[in-house]
Amino acid sequence: MSQGHTNEVNSVAFSPDGRQLVSGSSDKTLRLWDTVTGQCTATLEGHTSVVSSVAFSKDGLKLASGSWDETIRLWTLDTT
Amino acid sequence: MSQGHTNEVNSVAFSPDGRQLVSGSSDKTLRLWDTVTGQCTATLEGHTSVVSSVAFSKDGLKLASGSWDETIRLWTLDTT
Amino acid sequence: MSQGHTNEVNSVAFSPDGRQLVSGSSDKTLRLWDTVTGQCTATLEGHTSVVSSVAFSKDGLKLASGSWDETIRLWTLDTT
Amino acid sequence: MSQGHTNEVNSVAFSPDGRQLVSGSSDKTLRLWDTVTGQCTATLEGHTSVVSSVAFSKDGLKLASGSWDETIRLWTLDTT
Repeated sequence: MSQGHTNEVNSVAFSPDGRQLVSGSSDKTLRLWDTVTGQCTATLEGHTSVVSSVAFSKDGLKLASGSWDETIRLWTLDTT
Repeated sequence: MSQGHTNEVNSVAFSPDGRQLVSGSSDKTLRLWDTVTGQCTATLEGHTSVVSSVAFSKDGLKLASGSWDETIRLWTLDTT
Repeated sequence: MSQGHTNEVNSVAFSPDGRQLVSGSSDKTLRLWDTVTGQCTATLEGHTSVVSSVAFSKDGLKLASGSWDETIRLWTLDTT
Repeated sequence: MSQGHTNEVNSVAFSPDGRQLVSGSSDKTLRLWDTVTGQCTATLEGHTSVVSSVAFSKDGLKLASGSWDETIRLWTLDTT
């Protein structure tokens, strides 16, 4: 069990290499998780309402989120 | 943050090459986004109710949407 | 626009080859669509409540659906 | 028809090889299904509220779930 979100989790997606998971929540954030340790590695903030849908790009370098705040957000992962 | 929709975003999906994102909204439209610039490149209109689900075909040339208007719509992307 | 469902469409998914689309609806059915003609090629009946989620297997030969009727259903596509 | 869940099924996903299906339900569990026999092969318990979203990793060895209990869970499949 990996805790961190403070409201419902609505959507989850694995990275193509399976090492990361992204989750979208009614707490307005996305979280990235290390799938080996189960630890949260990042909290992505900015949406001002429920995050309804999340997706990873095929190259694993980008994330997208859709929100009830009427916006989509694109996130570039820091691979350094 | 990419604005344009005028109601909740319910579903997002990347194109297979990661260069485009499609979003489906309660504002009855789909929007296409350039994932590098974050700009909206097209607004796909026709549904008469909430767009609940969107998908890209594997070749990146077609989009599909499902709506609370009881229809599905197929969209062919202009690649010129 | 492809009509046929008699209630909200909740979920759409392309077949791996892009030639078919499956949709799941609150009308308790799944429908298969030819993505070239936009015609409905099959209506899959059996669920007794809302179809919330649909998926294609990677080989394009199986469909799965989840429903508010508390069951999942597996469908084998006739390829003759 | 494959029975087992005791509340709405919200999300289904095939394993990459198509031999398994995972479902997430409002009954707080995930279930794994053999797609040939239609039999439930495992019930994954732990969530304390609705399971909203499920996903398979590309290698077919991990499952992820998101829940209204504010957690995500990662499950490693026993392949022995």
